[in-house]
Amino acid sequence: MNIKSTLIKVIFCGILLLSSTLNAQQTQYYHMPMPANIKAGNGKLLIDKNFSISLEGRYDERLTKEASRFLRRLDQKSGRFFIQHKVTGETENAELVISVSQPGEIKLHEDESYSITVSPTKIDLKAKTDLGAIRGLETLLQSIEVEEGNYYFKSLIINDNPRFAWRGLMLDVSRHYMPMDVIYRNLDAMAAVKLNVLHLHLSDDQGFRFQSKTFPKLTEVASDGLYYTHQELRDIISYADQRGIRVMPEIDVPGHATAMLVAFPELGSKDTTYTLERYAGIFDPTLDPTKDEVYVFLKALFEEMSTIFTDDFFHIGGDENMGKHWTESKSIQEFKKKHNLADNHDLHTYFNLRLQKVLAELGKRTMGWEEIMTTKMPKSAVIHSWRGENEGTAARKSLNEAAKSGYETILSNGYYLDLMYSTADHYLVDPIPEGSELSDEEKKRILGGEMCMWSELVVPETIDSRLWPRAAAIAERLWSPGSVNDVDDMYRRLEIIGLELEELGLKHYTARSVILRKLTKGHDITPLRTLVEVVEPMKGYTRNPGGTMYATYSPFSLWADAATADAKVAREFNNNVNLYLAGNFDAKGLAEQLTLWKKNHTKVLSLIERSPVLLEIKELSENLSITATIGLEAIAFIEKDIALPAKWYETSKKSLEAALENGGRTELQVISGIKMLVNQVEVQVKQ
Amino acid sequence: MNIKSTLIKVIFCGILLLSSTLNAQQTQYYHMPMPANIKAGNGKLLIDKNFSISLEGRYDERLTKEASRFLRRLDQKSGRFFIQHKVTGETENAELVISVSQPGEIKLHEDESYSITVSPTKIDLKAKTDLGAIRGLETLLQSIEVEEGNYYFKSLIINDNPRFAWRGLMLDVSRHYMPMDVIYRNLDAMAAVKLNVLHLHLSDDQGFRFQSKTFPKLTEVASDGLYYTHQELRDIISYADQRGIRVMPEIDVPGHATAMLVAFPELGSKDTTYTLERYAGIFDPTLDPTKDEVYVFLKALFEEMSTIFTDDFFHIGGDENMGKHWTESKSIQEFKKKHNLADNHDLHTYFNLRLQKVLAELGKRTMGWEEIMTTKMPKSAVIHSWRGENEGTAARKSLNEAAKSGYETILSNGYYLDLMYSTADHYLVDPIPEGSELSDEEKKRILGGEMCMWSELVVPETIDSRLWPRAAAIAERLWSPGSVNDVDDMYRRLEIIGLELEELGLKHYTARSVILRKLTKGHDITPLRTLVEVVEPMKGYTRNPGGTMYATYSPFSLWADAATADAKVAREFNNNVNLYLAGNFDAKGLAEQLTLWKKNHTKVLSLIERSPVLLEIKELSENLSITATIGLEAIAFIEKDIALPAKWYETSKKSLEAALENGGRTELQVISGIKMLVNQVEVQVKQ
Repeated sequence: MNIKSTLIKVIFCGILLLSSTLNAQQTQYYHMPMPANIKAGNGKLLIDKNFSISLEGRYDERLTKEASRFLRRLDQKSGRFFIQHKVTGETENAELVISVSQPGEIKLHEDESYSITVSPTKIDLKAKTDLGAIRGLETLLQSIEVEEGNYYFKSLIINDNPRFAWRGLMLDVSRHYMPMDVIYRNLDAMAAVKLNVLHLHLSDDQGFRFQSKTFPKLTEVASDGLYYTHQELRDIISYADQRGIRVMPEIDVPGHATAMLVAFPELGSKDTTYTLERYAGIFDPTLDPTKDEVYVFLKALFEEMSTIFTDDFFHIGGDENMGKHWTESKSIQEFKKKHNLADNHDLHTYFNLRLQKVLAELGKRTMGWEEIMTTKMPKSAVIHSWRGENEGTAARKSLNEAAKSGYETILSNGYYLDLMYSTADHYLVDPIPEGSELSDEEKKRILGGEMCMWSELVVPETIDSRLWPRAAAIAERLWSPGSVNDVDDMYRRLEIIGLELEELGLKHYTARSVILRKLTKGHDITPLRTLVEVVEPMKGYTRNPGGTMYATYSPFSLWADAATADAKVAREFNNNVNLYLAGNFDAKGLAEQLTLWKKNHTKVLSLIERSPVLLEIKELSENLSITATIGLEAIAFIEKDIALPAKWYETSKKSLEAALENGGRTELQVISGIKMLVNQVEVQVKQ
Repeated sequence: MNIKSTLIKVIFCGILLLSSTLNAQQTQYYHMPMPANIKAGNGKLLIDKNFSISLEGRYDERLTKEASRFLRRLDQKSGRFFIQHKVTGETENAELVISVSQPGEIKLHEDESYSITVSPTKIDLKAKTDLGAIRGLETLLQSIEVEEGNYYFKSLIINDNPRFAWRGLMLDVSRHYMPMDVIYRNLDAMAAVKLNVLHLHLSDDQGFRFQSKTFPKLTEVASDGLYYTHQELRDIISYADQRGIRVMPEIDVPGHATAMLVAFPELGSKDTTYTLERYAGIFDPTLDPTKDEVYVFLKALFEEMSTIFTDDFFHIGGDENMGKHWTESKSIQEFKKKHNLADNHDLHTYFNLRLQKVLAELGKRTMGWEEIMTTKMPKSAVIHSWRGENEGTAARKSLNEAAKSGYETILSNGYYLDLMYSTADHYLVDPIPEGSELSDEEKKRILGGEMCMWSELVVPETIDSRLWPRAAAIAERLWSPGSVNDVDDMYRRLEIIGLELEELGLKHYTARSVILRKLTKGHDITPLRTLVEVVEPMKGYTRNPGGTMYATYSPFSLWADAATADAKVAREFNNNVNLYLAGNFDAKGLAEQLTLWKKNHTKVLSLIERSPVLLEIKELSENLSITATIGLEAIAFIEKDIALPAKWYETSKKSLEAALENGGRTELQVISGIKMLVNQVEVQVKQ
């Protein structure tokens, strides 16, 4: 998945129009995902130390544990020192009564619906399965209110169920291995926003992360000692199960197979030895689909994995297979002739069909990236749509084609969080947008979506800040009705959910301070914070040109790693410029912000002197100062305080263009706002 | 270990005297622990992307891994994008050459000495064992300098070796279980400050944390599902081994045994059933030393544990056995008569001797808290000295007695980090203080010390902030020469090591922000930060009176959990008042600080309104405002700006006394400074 992402630019135009569809009532709530139906009453139920929970009906042990965890989390939030320690079953006079009809199964299409009724004396949480109840508990935790020194639940009625059954997160644990605690805390975060599939990308050119007992060599020589044991994967699956989350493995074949070929070069399409890949990109090492040993190997591997991964689905990758080594191989070319395979595409199909059969025998449904969708592929396969405009195709093209052809399918195009686009960009990508050409039956085949976290530039210390809170907005897209799509309201709620996620142990906010403190070595980090708050890491695949600037072992605790997508301060500044130009924002407020930026550079310079590692941001910091100065001059002119030299705006525009240049692998995000100010000057001068 | 700690107050008087012994040269260094011998030269060796490492001699694979880890850590710090990926052995023209004579063994008294010579072209790190080399690598990482846009190592010669062979950290994982990531990151921190023993307190009244395959019931019913598997413990031991750290288990018997008795009540001294303890304190449940089944059980358990814990030492606890159930039991009383055991103390000795024999057969040396030191105890036992003045005995009494009686022994009295005393307090506790009455032979029996982290009030989210950076100062006490004891210089270096530790993933600094953000729910945390920076959690056992205010499941993410020992801002303020009164500090500087505190309360009040969980600090915040006002008035008077009403100082003193009252289980730390100001007023008025 290294080709440029599929940011659906066209959707931007829709933002303002869509905004008007927001239900005004929703702004009083803090939920994310927003429930399908929510109505407020007038009463309230106090949360005090006697708050307790009762369970009724038929449920899995999972629910007693989750209800206990809810109790402790609520106690942490409110600090009431609850008397009830654990939730074990029926409890007399409990404030929260959870009723469930049947234990939930951790599988696709399991019922996750629930209803909540809060009255002044009691909360009823009802669900068909305990999975629904678990989703409802997360909603309830997002419903706490404060008044006159107390915490309480406001009276309300919620009826909720997911729009899509498949709401996933793909973690690439091959490019950079992610330790168990990273997986655990991200499962907590996933559960908090009602995601229900963890897709583990366990193999790629840079590392094989499943410790096979059948083929121990895989991790012995192709993992740098970083992999998951059977027991660890069982622990992950159990932890996920507890939260109502499926875990699906991926072994990426026949391309992206360098790691496998380091261990077993005899399975490759070229007679050579292989070394573990340390850089990013699309590489040539490919399994040889003409060799029976390849199928023997994969069958044994899949069998072993199936004893651990109990999910109904198994992902075989299949993306970006360029077939260079196939074309170069005489024997493979002969095989193609012999089997009437017209091209490498046909050969790939041949390979997939054999694997599909192996997996079917194991009771698994095959899933693969969209390249596996060929005419002969059985309709039981699930098509994972990932390409879009940046890959030279229309967004959702393969998604819609799959649905029309009778395949079930999910969307990842537009949900690549590692590419550092804004939350709004991702939020407005809808698997089934309004006005979709698909029939109802075809729409049903679109199971949902998965956000992807490819880890070329991501390490355990920074992965949370690349995932969260943006992933929460995509989670809402996949759970809530399509009509919930107001960007401003999303950003309002995103800040709140961001804090909720931090309470779960996520490091998305703390990672920045840790890196900035490291970079300043004990000096005041404020000037760096001021700067980092208005930059974003270079987007798409530009940060790592050719995949060769960063190796897997490069330092990932530098300036760009402290920067995050969606720089809030910059976004707000640009918004404020818009408001100012429309006469709805004070010049003074803008000027104060700009003055801070103008003066920041001197402070940054003094930090750079002490920390050579910061040299890479010298120009970036100067550019902020220069552009802020231009902004101040523009405002002064607009406010008629100063006369600008002729053609000032042309020089300024040039400076602003120059300031677009990256620094420390990040880009300034306030230039668009300042450009608007300069344009206004131009308009006024020309009048 | 619940009796009041042993803060050695008498040592305070020595601080100023000892300060003068500081070697002035040391202040140019940032190391902690300070090496035994260090001399600077004039040249420097540049750190650029070609920096590489070569290994020579006979070493364990441990060293290749640690040298590779060093390389990556140095790259993270300097951001040079090193070309060398891994250290594998001899490398031509390497800047850092590590020479080792023999592989190290992870056992007591293994050679940890090393020498470093930095010249402008090469660094020589020489050590007898790879353990010494690993210690040296940590020293080298603390030796990075900056000049003119570059990172470099300054020319120097270091000859270093530890003062004590046993430098430990005891983690109580029973009161609150600590997940694997907590253990891992704390092992990293231990290695960074050259600690070499992790002592795991695996059983107590609140939980049994070793998953026994022989006795699965132990964790099934007495762990709340929180325990370490064999594999997890092997992983911990391997991770520690990699860093040259021993891992010693403790099963605390015969007291502190509630968890064991929940599973096997038949082993208890009273015919009853037991429930897992949820509170803190000293409890009655005790193993019955008259039953053979007890020894059969413990023998099997110890045997099983010995297959995992390869260390030569095994800790059997033995502390705080009050023997209440022994006294109450008719059969136990009869047993005592029959075996000529005069009292419960004798019976405990009988018990220990039988266990000692079991452990000896397993090739283990028995270690226990000081209560096991009885006349009959074999001299092969190691005595763990923990009681002191607060327990009604002299500091180091049992330590010295043990040494004199022929036992090897280590000190923990004065090193209880969970009690939240200042770093200086701990730093000045020396196992063998100058002028010790012990003979050289007796001194040799003092192997070192262990800091203790009892976890009644500590959870995974906060444990780092309770351990670090204070533990680094104790690590220095145990590694460096006793003459390295300047408190100011220790604090100077402690700040730097604190940041180094954060780079390793420790959460000691970030935990505060996370809690404060939780408490303010997205509002500006600055006012809370201002307040929390001048308070400390209640010390000793006062925060949890009677052990009943907090249960194990109480919320530990409230105000007191955001506070840490050794409030730096308060310490500096009090120092500045001293300087001011001596004519060496500006009144204006003090007044600015006091004005900030005076005005802070209004802001805190507005936060409390939004977060009822903060109500507990209302008076505390008001007290800071009141005392700051008094400080401002005192300064104004001292500076002769205002005339104070008669007896102003008496009213003020009363207010200051009242302000000593705790708030949110924390105490204001600036009152002593303000008292000094008021006393000065009194002196001036009376003149």
